[in-house]
Amino acid sequence: MGVPPPLHSHADSRCKGPILKTQSISVPKAPKEPFVRIVPLGGCGEIGRNMTVIETNNDLVVVDCGLMFPDEEMFGVDIVINDFSYVRERVHKLRAVLVTHGHEDHIGGIPYFLREFPNTPIVGTAITGALIKAKSREHKLGEMPLVAVAPGDRVRYGDIEAEFVHINHSVAGACSLAIRTPSGTIFHTGDFKFDQTPIDGRPADFAALARIGEEGVLCMLADSTNAERPGHTQSERVVGEAFTTIFSKATGRILIVSFASNVPRIQQAIDHAEKFGRKIAFLGRSMNNVLHFAREHGHLRIPPDILVKIEDVGSLRADQIVVMTTGSQGEPMSGLSRMSVRDHPKFSIDPGDTIVISATPIPGNEKSVYRTINNLYRLGATVIHGSEGRAHVSGHASQEELLLMLNLIRPEYFIPVHGEYRMLVTHGRLATKTGVHPESVFVIENGDIVEFTAEYGDKIGKTYGGMVLVDGTGLGEIGEAVLRDRKMLSNDGIVTAVVAIDAEEAQTIGVPDIVTRGAFYEPESEELIEHLRAHLSAMLATLSNDALRDTNSVREHVRATLAKEIFSRTRRRPVIVPIVIEA
Amino acid sequence: MGVPPPLHSHADSRCKGPILKTQSISVPKAPKEPFVRIVPLGGCGEIGRNMTVIETNNDLVVVDCGLMFPDEEMFGVDIVINDFSYVRERVHKLRAVLVTHGHEDHIGGIPYFLREFPNTPIVGTAITGALIKAKSREHKLGEMPLVAVAPGDRVRYGDIEAEFVHINHSVAGACSLAIRTPSGTIFHTGDFKFDQTPIDGRPADFAALARIGEEGVLCMLADSTNAERPGHTQSERVVGEAFTTIFSKATGRILIVSFASNVPRIQQAIDHAEKFGRKIAFLGRSMNNVLHFAREHGHLRIPPDILVKIEDVGSLRADQIVVMTTGSQGEPMSGLSRMSVRDHPKFSIDPGDTIVISATPIPGNEKSVYRTINNLYRLGATVIHGSEGRAHVSGHASQEELLLMLNLIRPEYFIPVHGEYRMLVTHGRLATKTGVHPESVFVIENGDIVEFTAEYGDKIGKTYGGMVLVDGTGLGEIGEAVLRDRKMLSNDGIVTAVVAIDAEEAQTIGVPDIVTRGAFYEPESEELIEHLRAHLSAMLATLSNDALRDTNSVREHVRATLAKEIFSRTRRRPVIVPIVIEA
Repeated sequence: MGVPPPLHSHADSRCKGPILKTQSISVPKAPKEPFVRIVPLGGCGEIGRNMTVIETNNDLVVVDCGLMFPDEEMFGVDIVINDFSYVRERVHKLRAVLVTHGHEDHIGGIPYFLREFPNTPIVGTAITGALIKAKSREHKLGEMPLVAVAPGDRVRYGDIEAEFVHINHSVAGACSLAIRTPSGTIFHTGDFKFDQTPIDGRPADFAALARIGEEGVLCMLADSTNAERPGHTQSERVVGEAFTTIFSKATGRILIVSFASNVPRIQQAIDHAEKFGRKIAFLGRSMNNVLHFAREHGHLRIPPDILVKIEDVGSLRADQIVVMTTGSQGEPMSGLSRMSVRDHPKFSIDPGDTIVISATPIPGNEKSVYRTINNLYRLGATVIHGSEGRAHVSGHASQEELLLMLNLIRPEYFIPVHGEYRMLVTHGRLATKTGVHPESVFVIENGDIVEFTAEYGDKIGKTYGGMVLVDGTGLGEIGEAVLRDRKMLSNDGIVTAVVAIDAEEAQTIGVPDIVTRGAFYEPESEELIEHLRAHLSAMLATLSNDALRDTNSVREHVRATLAKEIFSRTRRRPVIVPIVIEA
Repeated sequence: MGVPPPLHSHADSRCKGPILKTQSISVPKAPKEPFVRIVPLGGCGEIGRNMTVIETNNDLVVVDCGLMFPDEEMFGVDIVINDFSYVRERVHKLRAVLVTHGHEDHIGGIPYFLREFPNTPIVGTAITGALIKAKSREHKLGEMPLVAVAPGDRVRYGDIEAEFVHINHSVAGACSLAIRTPSGTIFHTGDFKFDQTPIDGRPADFAALARIGEEGVLCMLADSTNAERPGHTQSERVVGEAFTTIFSKATGRILIVSFASNVPRIQQAIDHAEKFGRKIAFLGRSMNNVLHFAREHGHLRIPPDILVKIEDVGSLRADQIVVMTTGSQGEPMSGLSRMSVRDHPKFSIDPGDTIVISATPIPGNEKSVYRTINNLYRLGATVIHGSEGRAHVSGHASQEELLLMLNLIRPEYFIPVHGEYRMLVTHGRLATKTGVHPESVFVIENGDIVEFTAEYGDKIGKTYGGMVLVDGTGLGEIGEAVLRDRKMLSNDGIVTAVVAIDAEEAQTIGVPDIVTRGAFYEPESEELIEHLRAHLSAMLATLSNDALRDTNSVREHVRATLAKEIFSRTRRRPVIVPIVIEA
């Protein structure tokens, strides 16, 4: 809560809403001497669509390629991906995409990337590859250029060598990356936490982290999600303790809701089912996909005879059942949401069921999550939710862990990434407490270019770091104008007026037609529409012959007249579309 | 986190989204013997628009009459108020509106209520009346029928007597109500917490609460906002301790952001300005309104010479300034939001400013609050926000306080109100722990009718408890159809096609016109629109003469053809409006 001195800030952009285009692009020519550039294209100044370019004189790799889900202002947009321009302009140097882990905000843009840059090696652990494959299925990309590595492996692409380092996160197979270049080592933490008592028995590879720190790191990029949280993020094992309490008290069925990719959480559900003599069923495609892959890659220990099919759950006693499914974010089409309104084909909630929502709402999803929880309570279920019930812990490092990472890696320069601006600033201030010089902390945002040579390390320019909005098959075709129209339409609907003009006679034909959508409550608006038609006719009758022959003029008169009359009668401002037909 | 046995639930409604109309209304005739009915019309099963009817054989009073802000699915809706049908049908018995305190979710519906039921006495403490007057100003209601009471006062309306009991909450002048009827006493807590060390030195009136409990209470209605929070809500004084730390460290200006009605918070800001030798300026109309009223009614202690005008702040040193304003919810037009994008006419943020957001985001507002905070960081300010920095405490009782209230009042029956369904269930379970019989706990929702006579107490029916959506001057004119249209428009925009038909010749005139809004990115969609026009023309050419003479048939053909072609080319489903002109 203290008030530390302001940090040297390198950011210059301010945004009112979604950044669609970055202003004032300036990309200096690459120097002749050895250099390394770090360019975050997404995830830096916001949560989501993580992607960072690492570029040397001859080679370029991309770390992660994620997507972001649209906010409520991006009407009709399905997903948001990154602007690949910087890569496109250097496609001859592009060698690989290195993937830290298989969450959608790190892999969701890969199908779009491969469409434009086919055959780029996509390098990650086996389970990460499996998650990429599963998420890309609907894109029908055919055989994907996946390269599987194990933690500890090194891959080389020209000038650039990357070492994958095992780390803890809320997904199996997560790694940090030590990226060695002729100008020095760039260390990218990926998403991480330090779990000293992880479920799979494998804490972060402290030996490798310490060795990399000893070898010397030019610049570290680190996960800032929880930079504002003091202390230490709790161990995944805490969730197990909560499960033990819940399982020992529950007399009915237990439903556990989690992200499908949270393999440690799935393991804990299986372990508790075993311990308490219950069978477990997995519900939903993504849950079953992950179960399959994780089992195949040895990430899950599944005792014999514990799995049952969801169809067979009906034949078991309530206190013999655990069901695991997705939908922790209240997504309207998810299994949990549909159950909460008795609309699920395979599972209905009974009074006495205990539902454990083993996740917290992502900001923006609170209302839909709580709506789902309320509906589950209405069905008589008991719902244990959020971190208050300890049925969830974060997958991201809090301040003490961030400080530990800084002290292990001891970078010369520091770039906080993966967070909103407030988190980046706070993380930057933490770094200075471990001895990083304030001038060597770069609090930058998407598109900013940081360059290191033997002589200097500095922010040297800005490239396109904006959002590309995907709507249907359209890729980046949705611009600010379309969103503005959709916003206006959503506020007050639309009123279309069709006026037919006999240009020769310079007179209107009949009475104008008016069609509305989303503007007025139809049964009660008939009178209003009749009035507007008459009002338009009267206005048109006052126009001169010349005015009537000028389609643009008629259109503008119709628009202005309608807008004024509708506002004065209803205080609404629908979009008005005047259509003038010359007959 | 335990799993208590399911409580006897009286609720039967399930909702997928906003409840617009309550289903299956059934209001039994009032009995001949003495009775009292309790009917929550809003706020029961949701947060907002609090309103409860208390009705006896001859008289009816309303407790509170609030509004709710629309959620993101209620496109274009300005505010949401309650359905007054139950009151309307008993208007001859209507005696008064008793107001517990001056927050918008308790008073915001009063102007609409007075429009329909003019001259109904509106009874509350003086500061509550002042807040009602300020909020109603834009409604131009003229002289309002406000009746000012002091805590401890009793008012009588026919059969019904109400005693106002001083309680703590995050607004001055908040009261609980003991409502005495021939059938027994109904105790309504209003919004409350027990602050043992309040800023104004006045803890809740425990003597009155204990006496009322001793006298016997038939049924208690109690605030459930924090029913899921264990322990005790912190005292307002904790915020003072946080202010002390912040003020002692800040070297630049301090900006405190809070709700205007939070008079204790304003007092703390003034006290700290005094203690640390700073002047204080209040920015914004609502802040200055409250300052004026609170001062007038003796709710604020303001030392001489400490107030400065915001215009004069420029002449002071940075470390001599405190500014207090509103906008803690990230509202786009609020002072704080405008400052965060350098768009405020009277105040601009400097690097080195300390901004204290002395509030937490209301669920649904998180994104806009954090967007504002990020922008403030971009300007170089330090932002202390939320309850993590202890710069805010809740105004609502947590579990230990709810239990204390139950033990003071010892009601025979209990109705949890003011909360989402999950909170009501949890509060109901708490009540049983203090000895209320599980069958005497009514977990009910808006519109449910609970009736007590000498013989029984039970839920006996359901009246209209739905939302009335206010858009512009329209009151309840926005129905589900309009919202559905607006939702579709916001997703994929609209495509209007105008086809002119010569009915006599049974042929089309010219090529159809196509106008779109919010559907396609215009520059790149020209080709698509040309294609659609040609495609429509080709389709029309295949129609028989009879089909062409049938306007409805042409319209349906145009709609279907466009929908199919647009979806196959873009995967979008805009609203399609076919207009057929017979010329």
